[in-house]
Amino acid sequence: MLELNHSKGSSDISNDEDDNSTNNSKHDFKVTPWEVEGEIDYNKLIAQFGTQPITSEIIERIKQVTGEVHPMLKLQYFFSHRDLDWILNKHEGGESFYLYTGRGPSGMVHIGHMMPWLFTKYIQEKFGSKLLFQLTDDEKFLQTQDRSREEIGHYTYENILDIIAVGFNPDKTKIILDTRHIQHLYPIATEIAKRITFSTAKAVFGFSNSTNIGMIGFPPIQAAPCFLPSIIENKPTPVLIPAAIDQDPYWRVTRDVAERMGYYKPAQIHSKFLPSLGMVGKMSSSKPETALFTIDEPEVIDKKVSAAFTGGQATVALQRQLGGNALGCPVFWYLRYLFDTERQSDERLLKCSSGNLLCGECKSDLSKESQKFLGEFKKRREKAKDVIAEFMFDGAPYEK
Amino acid sequence: MLELNHSKGSSDISNDEDDNSTNNSKHDFKVTPWEVEGEIDYNKLIAQFGTQPITSEIIERIKQVTGEVHPMLKLQYFFSHRDLDWILNKHEGGESFYLYTGRGPSGMVHIGHMMPWLFTKYIQEKFGSKLLFQLTDDEKFLQTQDRSREEIGHYTYENILDIIAVGFNPDKTKIILDTRHIQHLYPIATEIAKRITFSTAKAVFGFSNSTNIGMIGFPPIQAAPCFLPSIIENKPTPVLIPAAIDQDPYWRVTRDVAERMGYYKPAQIHSKFLPSLGMVGKMSSSKPETALFTIDEPEVIDKKVSAAFTGGQATVALQRQLGGNALGCPVFWYLRYLFDTERQSDERLLKCSSGNLLCGECKSDLSKESQKFLGEFKKRREKAKDVIAEFMFDGAPYEK
Repeated sequence: MLELNHSKGSSDISNDEDDNSTNNSKHDFKVTPWEVEGEIDYNKLIAQFGTQPITSEIIERIKQVTGEVHPMLKLQYFFSHRDLDWILNKHEGGESFYLYTGRGPSGMVHIGHMMPWLFTKYIQEKFGSKLLFQLTDDEKFLQTQDRSREEIGHYTYENILDIIAVGFNPDKTKIILDTRHIQHLYPIATEIAKRITFSTAKAVFGFSNSTNIGMIGFPPIQAAPCFLPSIIENKPTPVLIPAAIDQDPYWRVTRDVAERMGYYKPAQIHSKFLPSLGMVGKMSSSKPETALFTIDEPEVIDKKVSAAFTGGQATVALQRQLGGNALGCPVFWYLRYLFDTERQSDERLLKCSSGNLLCGECKSDLSKESQKFLGEFKKRREKAKDVIAEFMFDGAPYEK
Repeated sequence: MLELNHSKGSSDISNDEDDNSTNNSKHDFKVTPWEVEGEIDYNKLIAQFGTQPITSEIIERIKQVTGEVHPMLKLQYFFSHRDLDWILNKHEGGESFYLYTGRGPSGMVHIGHMMPWLFTKYIQEKFGSKLLFQLTDDEKFLQTQDRSREEIGHYTYENILDIIAVGFNPDKTKIILDTRHIQHLYPIATEIAKRITFSTAKAVFGFSNSTNIGMIGFPPIQAAPCFLPSIIENKPTPVLIPAAIDQDPYWRVTRDVAERMGYYKPAQIHSKFLPSLGMVGKMSSSKPETALFTIDEPEVIDKKVSAAFTGGQATVALQRQLGGNALGCPVFWYLRYLFDTERQSDERLLKCSSGNLLCGECKSDLSKESQKFLGEFKKRREKAKDVIAEFMFDGAPYEK
């Protein structure tokens, strides 16, 4: 049974020194900014983190603007929020909001990373929002002893290409690279940092005596872009953060200090994690054979998809007889989230469950669609090399 | 009895979680970067901090370069060091070293602050050293909840005038203002930060659960200028830090990580504190009536000096009969450190001890000399307003 430690009273965070529930090993899953483990119960996460479920009423309000329901909302890939209703109020009242999301450049980008970015691009298009995209190269350097600045610099460059290739509006999108743009973040970060005690940080992020002081000092750097729009626009400016739920601890502490600093609390819309092709755990760079990277060659994609775990039965005969478990199948979900129309996906579910579809057919569909999607993405990624400066916060190039 | 917690084995610092001896209330004095209390036993501090006393042999080696013995060395105002002998080896071997010192801009500058700066200027002249002078405006902002950025900005400007008025060589001196030049410090600071655990920081700086994470993350920012010269010069570059002993915790953690980062350990030369005019404790901005500020008007100086505690007897008759206690008299020490020649000071000591000198005479001497010194200093301070940009690390002006 999870305790609701993070939704006590009116504060988003708890100051209880021993409160460490976000990464407590007694739970059957663990979700922190640095570790996602186990089979995640997203409803329990909503209770544990003290967030709100995305209701049909909110989806209906978004539809008023977009004219449709985005599959990631309909399928509850984005499942939780804080103050999304307030953001919609602001928008309806004629006040524009910023989007803010980010990436820790510790490896190549896979489609799991891209899911919230694709949604962010969609929101940017539909709501006309400006976007700050933060690359936390400092955090990735601080996180482990064995990661060199050169390695992070390499991934930073590669990740920038991916971010641009997503197709964000170049007139409304700025990439912040922490080590390079620190002078814009540091004054805000110190304002935030002085309001967060070690007790609180320990409780929210799970820091210990052996955590290095760089990591302990880092959260305000990730919090700073929540308030940067108010400085850029020279007035309190609403910010909506589309990101996976594991980043929520940052926004909890940020929300707790926002009003004392004269800013709006940043709003969030939280996504689930894309399952790995092995279905156990989220898609992760640390298991490259079960992740589809944006730079994977067609034959690599085909090989990975062919080797994917599925919800199918052990033999064709059994599959025909018993049907497959589509809802426990990563191939089904990738197709549903990214490539199938709703009707196609519902049909696929029905055919699979009734034994009228074999895993090979779904894998072939996914392989083909992924190759097409990533093939096109790779072309945009190549073109991105020429426009990096346009997207950087300081308007200057970033060399590999 | 003090424990030698900070001089165990070959490491400058201890990782013992409960080691907190630098600010342990069981001692009869307390010396941390944020608090100096009680009557300090400097020999005990040498043992406690694990530093080295400045020997006559080292003073002799310095004299080989300077041709004389600076009063602050002769009088042991600078009394302790780390690797000063190594710095002299480097100099003798033809390798130049940087000087690095600093100031936290939380108030106006008094002559207690200026003592190490005057010595630093002297070393710069005699050894031809480049100097980095850091203003830790971030630390002063993080340290307490009630200090505004505007207040710190005001003192930053005023302190810059004092620093320039000291007379450092403008071609060889750069002022680093943390919030403004953070982009030059941050990459080095993260390298340092990832090598210092919270355990170590807690032991060395006395951090607790209620310390804010900005303060916990700050020490690497003060450590960074130790390694900046190596980056500027593009080769490992020796650095000597003249500063009061209370800053030593910073250099302990810095020294501990230096070689793992491919840099020289920074060397230190530690000063004592100038006693307050009340003689209890060091000269401090928090007791303005017992401190001589660089902006004090002549009549204010005279009033403060007249009201000073002295080593004199209760009445003139008793003074004539018993003699005074010059060594326990701030007026004597100010004159000795700053204004008397050695012969004058020795004569003063003798005359006071033998009852042939009254406190009024010494106070009159000190008031006159201080007014003259600070009067000239104030003129240089005015002229400093026109050359701020020359001294700033980025060569740009700093507006009040």
